[in-house]
Formats: sequence, C-alpha cells, structure tokens
Amino acid sequence: MNYPGIKKEYHKYKTFANRGMDLEYLINQANEYYLSSDKAVIYKKPTPIGIKKTNYKNGTIDGFFQSQSTLDYNGVYKGYYLDFDAKETNLRTSFPLANIHAHQLEHIKRVINHKGIAFLIISINTEFYLLDGKILLNFISNNERKSIPYDFIKENAIKIELKASPTLDYLKAVDILIKEEK
Amino acid sequence: MNYPGIKKEYHKYKTFANRGMDLEYLINQANEYYLSSDKAVIYKKPTPIGIKKTNYKNGTIDGFFQSQSTLDYNGVYKGYYLDFDAKETNLRTSFPLANIHAHQLEHIKRVINHKGIAFLIISINTEFYLLDGKILLNFISNNERKSIPYDFIKENAIKIELKASPTLDYLKAVDILIKEEK
Repeated sequence: MNYPGIKKEYHKYKTFANRGMDLEYLINQANEYYLSSDKAVIYKKPTPIGIKKTNYKNGTIDGFFQSQSTLDYNGVYKGYYLDFDAKETNLRTSFPLANIHAHQLEHIKRVINHKGIAFLIISINTEFYLLDGKILLNFISNNERKSIPYDFIKENAIKIELKASPTLDYLKAVDILIKEEK
Repeated sequence: MNYPGIKKEYHKYKTFANRGMDLEYLINQANEYYLSSDKAVIYKKPTPIGIKKTNYKNGTIDGFFQSQSTLDYNGVYKGYYLDFDAKETNLRTSFPLANIHAHQLEHIKRVINHKGIAFLIISINTEFYLLDGKILLNFISNNERKSIPYDFIKENAIKIELKASPTLDYLKAVDILIKEEK
C-alpha cells in the first residue's frame, strides 16, 4: 500500500506500528499542516496516565495507561467546534461497532446537542471516510446490527481523497458536512 | 522551592492543599456540573506524560510530566468553542505574566483567529476573574510591564461570583463575554 506524499520515516515507523498507528499518523500530520498554515487549531488529546507513584527526587512517575472518556481529537475550525476519533478495521465488508465505546457514543450525543460537530474518521479497505456523528447515532438507533456494512459507509459517509499535502486533508470532508447542515 | 525543569503538575501532586489545586478543583467541579446538567461539554486535557519505558508484561509505564502545548481546558458551549486555562497568584497587587508561557499566548491568538473563545480564569486576592484572551493580548502588545495590575483586572476582566452549586459558575461570565462580542 502506498500513499502519495508520505515521508520515508513514515514507512520505517509503519514497520513496527500497527494499522491504528497509520491513521493516527496521517491525522497528526494533517493537524500540523492545518496549524502551520493557519487553517484550524486541532490537537490530539494526550493519553491519560494513571499515576501510581511520583518520584520527587527526579520528577519521574510510575503509571499506567487509562482510556480517554472523550474522543481523541478536538479543536476549532471556522468557528465550529470539532470533536472526532480515528477508527480502523481490517475487515473488508463492515466496521464493527465494538470499536466505539459506550462513553464515546454518549460524548458524541452531547457534542451534537451543544452544536458541535462530532464525527469518526474511518479507515476501511484502504479508503478513508468521515462518518457524521448524527448518521452514526441514527444507524445505531435503527439497527440491531453489531457492525456498519461497508456499503452503508460508502453511501452515507464522506470519502476523504488522499492528496500530496496534507495526505489526509479531512477538513475538505468537514467543509462538505458544514455545507450539508446549512 | 523550585526544581529546574520540573513542571507545575509535579508541584500540584506534591502538596494537595496548595492554591493551584483549589482553582483546578473548582473548575473541575463546575465542568462536572455542566456535563451532568447538560449545559456544556468541557474537559480538562490529561497532563501529557513522556514515556521512558513501557512494561508490556503488566501494562505499566515509566514516564515524566511534560507541559501542555495548549491551554488546559476546552470544549463546546452553545455552539461556541471554548479554550481556557486556570491561573493563580499569591501576589495582591498584580498577576505576573511569567505565569503564561509563550506557546500559550500563541495558542490563544490562533483560537481567537478561528473564532473560538479563549480566556484565562485568574484567581487573585481570593477573587476569581475571567480575562478575555483578546484583552490579554492587547495588554501585552501595549505594555512593557511584566505583570497585569490588579486594578486593570478588576476593571477589564469579568468577575466570577461564587455561589452554592457549582461554586465557580464561570459560564455566567462566558455568557457576558458572548453578549459583549455580539
């Protein structure tokens, strides 16, 4: 698999990183581009660490990874509050809903309620899609299924085309989302 | 007492009863109230931890505190993107600008640029104020001073009155800020 515009370091990184790391890398790269080109201010939240012990002598800690109670990324774009997460699947025909935690769905509901824009960036079949949080919540309310079929994503999510810089220019898909909402 | 290179979070963990903990506690309490009463979705970002070593056997890490490249809190309220930090001083006559890092000022500028609302919640003389990021940036541009006089804060920031629940109902001050902007 070859994405245009990705540095050699990325491929090195890729060899010891999982697929989840790939999408995260592309989003971080896009966010850096948006920040430096003054298009948006979007950051990945730090991974929460539980502290077991603080070593006061040298300022180090012993800790453990905790899970985020929100989504991983948020920020501001054209006055809109954006809040989203990156999700990947190796399955070809569907995206398993087990990838989304209950507290994340609750968070998406809340954000939409307060007029923020919440979505997922889904990587499936080496394609990338922006799935509007509202469509996600609707799907879950109206289906007993434990996964979202690939065909549903193709029809209802906004495809993010890869380009030179940034590779994953997901704000273009956000623009479409904003336009549709108006 | 000052350890070079050791971040403020370290000091917070060191003594539970210091003033920094107080303001943070009040803001976290307010945020929980806003979340449970469905008024806003605002979280404190996790403290970034640099990882020195991951112990795969038991999922623990050896790490160290890092400083946030943004402000500590952000979220969505009435469709507005909010981004802010809590700052305290024990001085009575002024708030030292050394409390605000250069990258935080840069972040405030960016957020305002993209139509977000950026501010500081300042605790001084056992009073609490919301200082609009725009006023802060203006003050810094037009002054050689290394601190903001208490009188300037009293005149130009929005006082947050304490009440029963939540104690520090800072969204009331945000409402005033939004009204003034319109």
